[in-house]
Amino acid sequence: MTERVVLAYSGGLDTSVAIGWIAEETGAEVIAVAVDVGQGGEDLDVIRNRALACGAVEAEVADARDEFADEYCLPALKANALYMDRYPLVSALSRPVIVKHLVAAARKHGAGTVAHGCTGKGNDQVRFEVGISSLAPDLKCVAPVRDYAMTRDKAIAFCESKNLPIATTRKSPYSIDQNVFGRAVETGFLEDIWNAPIEDVYEYTADPAQPREADEVVVTFRQGVPVALDGRPVTVLQAIEELNRRAGAQGVGRLDMVEDRLVGIKSREVYEAPGAIALITAHQELENVTVERELARFKRTVDRRWGELVYDGQWFSPLKRALDGFVDEANEHVSGDVRMTLHGGRAVVTGRRSQESLYDFNLATYDTGDTFDQSQAKGFIEIYGLSSKIAARRDLHQG
Amino acid sequence: MTERVVLAYSGGLDTSVAIGWIAEETGAEVIAVAVDVGQGGEDLDVIRNRALACGAVEAEVADARDEFADEYCLPALKANALYMDRYPLVSALSRPVIVKHLVAAARKHGAGTVAHGCTGKGNDQVRFEVGISSLAPDLKCVAPVRDYAMTRDKAIAFCESKNLPIATTRKSPYSIDQNVFGRAVETGFLEDIWNAPIEDVYEYTADPAQPREADEVVVTFRQGVPVALDGRPVTVLQAIEELNRRAGAQGVGRLDMVEDRLVGIKSREVYEAPGAIALITAHQELENVTVERELARFKRTVDRRWGELVYDGQWFSPLKRALDGFVDEANEHVSGDVRMTLHGGRAVVTGRRSQESLYDFNLATYDTGDTFDQSQAKGFIEIYGLSSKIAARRDLHQG
Amino acid sequence: MTERVVLAYSGGLDTSVAIGWIAEETGAEVIAVAVDVGQGGEDLDVIRNRALACGAVEAEVADARDEFADEYCLPALKANALYMDRYPLVSALSRPVIVKHLVAAARKHGAGTVAHGCTGKGNDQVRFEVGISSLAPDLKCVAPVRDYAMTRDKAIAFCESKNLPIATTRKSPYSIDQNVFGRAVETGFLEDIWNAPIEDVYEYTADPAQPREADEVVVTFRQGVPVALDGRPVTVLQAIEELNRRAGAQGVGRLDMVEDRLVGIKSREVYEAPGAIALITAHQELENVTVERELARFKRTVDRRWGELVYDGQWFSPLKRALDGFVDEANEHVSGDVRMTLHGGRAVVTGRRSQESLYDFNLATYDTGDTFDQSQAKGFIEIYGLSSKIAARRDLHQG
Amino acid sequence: MTERVVLAYSGGLDTSVAIGWIAEETGAEVIAVAVDVGQGGEDLDVIRNRALACGAVEAEVADARDEFADEYCLPALKANALYMDRYPLVSALSRPVIVKHLVAAARKHGAGTVAHGCTGKGNDQVRFEVGISSLAPDLKCVAPVRDYAMTRDKAIAFCESKNLPIATTRKSPYSIDQNVFGRAVETGFLEDIWNAPIEDVYEYTADPAQPREADEVVVTFRQGVPVALDGRPVTVLQAIEELNRRAGAQGVGRLDMVEDRLVGIKSREVYEAPGAIALITAHQELENVTVERELARFKRTVDRRWGELVYDGQWFSPLKRALDGFVDEANEHVSGDVRMTLHGGRAVVTGRRSQESLYDFNLATYDTGDTFDQSQAKGFIEIYGLSSKIAARRDLHQG
Repeated sequence: MTERVVLAYSGGLDTSVAIGWIAEETGAEVIAVAVDVGQGGEDLDVIRNRALACGAVEAEVADARDEFADEYCLPALKANALYMDRYPLVSALSRPVIVKHLVAAARKHGAGTVAHGCTGKGNDQVRFEVGISSLAPDLKCVAPVRDYAMTRDKAIAFCESKNLPIATTRKSPYSIDQNVFGRAVETGFLEDIWNAPIEDVYEYTADPAQPREADEVVVTFRQGVPVALDGRPVTVLQAIEELNRRAGAQGVGRLDMVEDRLVGIKSREVYEAPGAIALITAHQELENVTVERELARFKRTVDRRWGELVYDGQWFSPLKRALDGFVDEANEHVSGDVRMTLHGGRAVVTGRRSQESLYDFNLATYDTGDTFDQSQAKGFIEIYGLSSKIAARRDLHQG
Repeated sequence: MTERVVLAYSGGLDTSVAIGWIAEETGAEVIAVAVDVGQGGEDLDVIRNRALACGAVEAEVADARDEFADEYCLPALKANALYMDRYPLVSALSRPVIVKHLVAAARKHGAGTVAHGCTGKGNDQVRFEVGISSLAPDLKCVAPVRDYAMTRDKAIAFCESKNLPIATTRKSPYSIDQNVFGRAVETGFLEDIWNAPIEDVYEYTADPAQPREADEVVVTFRQGVPVALDGRPVTVLQAIEELNRRAGAQGVGRLDMVEDRLVGIKSREVYEAPGAIALITAHQELENVTVERELARFKRTVDRRWGELVYDGQWFSPLKRALDGFVDEANEHVSGDVRMTLHGGRAVVTGRRSQESLYDFNLATYDTGDTFDQSQAKGFIEIYGLSSKIAARRDLHQG
Repeated sequence: MTERVVLAYSGGLDTSVAIGWIAEETGAEVIAVAVDVGQGGEDLDVIRNRALACGAVEAEVADARDEFADEYCLPALKANALYMDRYPLVSALSRPVIVKHLVAAARKHGAGTVAHGCTGKGNDQVRFEVGISSLAPDLKCVAPVRDYAMTRDKAIAFCESKNLPIATTRKSPYSIDQNVFGRAVETGFLEDIWNAPIEDVYEYTADPAQPREADEVVVTFRQGVPVALDGRPVTVLQAIEELNRRAGAQGVGRLDMVEDRLVGIKSREVYEAPGAIALITAHQELENVTVERELARFKRTVDRRWGELVYDGQWFSPLKRALDGFVDEANEHVSGDVRMTLHGGRAVVTGRRSQESLYDFNLATYDTGDTFDQSQAKGFIEIYGLSSKIAARRDLHQG
Repeated sequence: MTERVVLAYSGGLDTSVAIGWIAEETGAEVIAVAVDVGQGGEDLDVIRNRALACGAVEAEVADARDEFADEYCLPALKANALYMDRYPLVSALSRPVIVKHLVAAARKHGAGTVAHGCTGKGNDQVRFEVGISSLAPDLKCVAPVRDYAMTRDKAIAFCESKNLPIATTRKSPYSIDQNVFGRAVETGFLEDIWNAPIEDVYEYTADPAQPREADEVVVTFRQGVPVALDGRPVTVLQAIEELNRRAGAQGVGRLDMVEDRLVGIKSREVYEAPGAIALITAHQELENVTVERELARFKRTVDRRWGELVYDGQWFSPLKRALDGFVDEANEHVSGDVRMTLHGGRAVVTGRRSQESLYDFNLATYDTGDTFDQSQAKGFIEIYGLSSKIAARRDLHQG
């Protein structure tokens, strides 16, 4: 039987050319798989037909938007996942769901190899290949750009020589990856890290500096899951999409940072993630209200490791599964409402209420009615400070 | 000889009354010590004279603003200290510098006790007393509000009966603590955590929602220390003060959160820290450019522990000293310029440049001239993902 | 109705006297509750009758040995819990199970207070009272030794004056706590930390220096649970008991350390825990074989926090529950056999085998048949070392 | 000018053959560098002459034993470095000191490449090459066994055809690496992880099961550095060597474990490190006596990361330097004596005394004279347990 290769297909120039390129390099039949994770753009049917027109023996398209939101974005939200305290893992989250569909297609069509369009210097090649080897250790991986020297110029020449039905317009100055959880922009003049981004770079967010009316939203969570906006029930996907629109219209969620890539280099990245940032902001504050202090403190260590691990392409790793167990348990009581003002690039929490609140007005208030027994403080302080005091007695004596 | 008590004196009603109250309770002579950490308000001489008029046998005032900035705010900046990922430790930083002056005064005047005006349910009593016991394990501590039942009403009555020269106006609805690093507001209607703050609450920051021209600033750091603004050399104190003005004018640095207190309860806090937030934002991004990845990752663990420890009143502890050693070492290369736009409540980094940069254009670029050897990626991915792959082989087999 | 107090009853002098002492101090009726956690000694019926003879209105005894082994010792084993890398938490584990029985008795008998025999300077008072307030926040706690000044001398006098049926022999020179998971000895000449323990101190272990035949045991685990010894099925309790005997006979499990107490002081502790140490040793090595590297690395952080938390009396805390979720998940594949030699005070693993092993002979071997592709190493090393190399280029240039 | 290659030379078959092999493969001149890190065996002059006889254009030998002990073993001791809680990093510590000498030789002789004898599946190739790229990013690395397919059989054939002055005896069944800090043994029948090691495997340690007289030693530390044994001043090297002899004679320091290699596989390792284990045991207990609790707790996190980092070949990394800063600070007060009994495979601490002790007899004792104020405990417990109690009130209500 002819070898078969499953290709992660986007509909763009590179992966369209890759269909024929892989076939020529390997003699294999190519099956194109396009996964909708909310990246927008063309209709899936259009993409499907283009793959076939470019020579794919099969073309599969999948609407994975709810799956992506429920099984990939939601765990990130529960872990307040912000790589380097900033970046909500937009691309890092979409790779594993795409991997799942690629592996399923490889099994269905009897393919022994999975191909993707990544270069050899980014994170995504690692995320694809480590993901595939974790779900299907027997499958091989190939990346035509990296492994078969399929440069942009050669791809355009190939496209023209084969008369492929793709517009080979001048490439965008930027390299872009987007999905429902956000949008990543790199390269171009941004590679000079002293240069500021220009408005041209952004698509998911309006200019936060433009005057406009503020928007106010109440997000309701149940056990860490956003279940309603302004009282209307929503799915996780709907919550992200609506907040992408509303927070995006207020310029919320722009990020500009120098980032530590998994492959050891630093790169300049610009992101837009209005829905993600608004939801994480609300979720964090609801945790402040409903999660006990020591659990909250340790959860920050877990959350940070979760974010690093997923950024580093280890979505399907044993550690990720065990961290998820911790994170789910910690979200058990994260239920309630958070009111936020969306305005001028900021999502600002202005109120929180919860049946699960650990905030106790009577303990906290300085008003009459206070139930906190202040006489206990003296003993607490003495014993709480004792180990430092004993050390101080020694150190002062010697100093 | 008569017992002597050193009192942390603010010039306000509570501590003015405490002078006489302590004297009556204990028969001791009271020495008032006021420390200027940039809280503004009255002249130190006015405060000094009021203390004497209220019965203090001695009154000392100290301008500790530079000391506070250099020795307390700066280490916090180097550690990007944000308790619960938000709060730049405004009050927690000022307590140890005040403690240092109280202990020095106690030694100078032969006092055996230090008194402070805190209640028995907050963090500051712990910070004062653990700090004092770490610098002077032999000194006793007393808090008239907590230990001698000196309530507000009784204090006003005392004040009036003794004809003390203090205005006993109706108390502010808020409890406020402020210094050059920021301002903390609590109590009042904010104790209902569903209530949004009103403009009335703020003093250090203008309303971010008001349209105005953006401000742009270049902050220069040398080894983690801010040394120039827009090219003009500044002390740390000047850097904080100027950014308090400029970032404050743009509404930068407002925080509203439910916070885990050291004494085990959650409380609602509103903060303004325009200079602190602007400086930390700039410093973090310069770290992103100049600090190697694994050092940066572990530093986040150290920074978080540093913030918890200082929040928890352990400024003078052995662990704090050892963490400082790490943080200083990690800041060795954090030198360079960060350009920020201050506007609409946000301090946004738009550019960074550094002689110490680890960002390598030639490794990062997707342009020609790229020096990254992509052929190495294949081997990296295979071995990097090997332990997960071996685990997957086992787990899939059993699943 | 008369107030009722539930007392944690051991049958010894202190808690026998406490029955009457509490009654006199408070006028309450005292219900004695004795919990068998494998401490050995007298029959539970004897203890029950003594409580009644000493004035208890009710006396309950519970055989909690299996409950203690399954629900308290087993989670500690799964977390390899060794406080300060040494101490298997013997006493810290028994307090929460006793607390559970005390609270149940308080509910059953309508008591509003729980009493225990601890002093005011140890960890156990905290473990009892924090445990009780976590299971029954409405119950009050009282400790006659600490709160009612019930010293040893006064207790003996009380005993004699009331003619209580307790032998008031000279107290043991040591303070001892023991249960099936181990035995703790403190005070006496051990308080001079330069003094070595003498054989007299030990009961669970023979002198390791005496020549004897080695013992060999194969421990079988299923998902982290010891389920068989030398192929014979055992309960967790039986596993601990049998290894207490066999490892104890070889002198395994003696510990002598200076320990950081929760109340801020350091104390000298001598422990014997032959079964616990043998089981943890075997479990750790089976984890080495069956747990993926990154999961194993992070689990060490979780295990350490677990041990601190339980030592610190937070068994019933939210963080403990969430850590348990992680630990259970991490133990999912910890199944297989570990062969150990018990001899001369050491439990030494000599072999391991597991259906879940991640050790792959063909990858590890240096023999022919090796399946490890060494050509990948070059690329791995280059990219793995890249961030350090880039930093080195900068640092060497400047040095 | 002819290219020059610096080769890490051991004097054994593989690296002796590599001299000619590299010359044939590359046409370069080979400079052999042998570094004495206490591995014993032949005289350095003999090794030097053999290198020249095998075709090296230059041969350098260095006695780096004190350098290795002072600058590599000592930091490991201060960090109680035990990879996977067991392994004292024997080989991992020697690689960086060898790297330093290789780079110095490359600079001196104008070489552009460094060669080593490692295979492509172990940790040491990474340690060598990442180390070299961190000290000399411009140097290239080559490993004949891995890169030029120099198998054992081909090496023997080469040796015989060139008539090299090396005994090509049947290889030892084990792969061995040893230095003054310990000895590592792998491969052979040990690759079946159910097989127990046999006595034949060990060289640094006597059989712990043989009856013999116990040995007692007092180790004196100053700021974490072992400075005397039984009162006689020693260098770090002497301390290790003497304890290798004395603890080795008692069978102390044998380890048998399955270990997570940096390259993603698990391997079976047997170690002997009598001096290292004895010194770390003593150092840990002296830390228990002299280091404040919270510093000690965080130091365990630092120590663990230190060990992982060094195991992973990142000795010269920025994070390693910053961790060293912490570790040195934490050792500032680790001074005093530890008495240990060495016997039957165990190094057991029996006494400790220190001018820097934080153990306070008067606080710890249960005797009269106790200075601990037990009345403070009640307040401490109430506030210490408050956050758990508030969470419990919520959770019980809902449960």
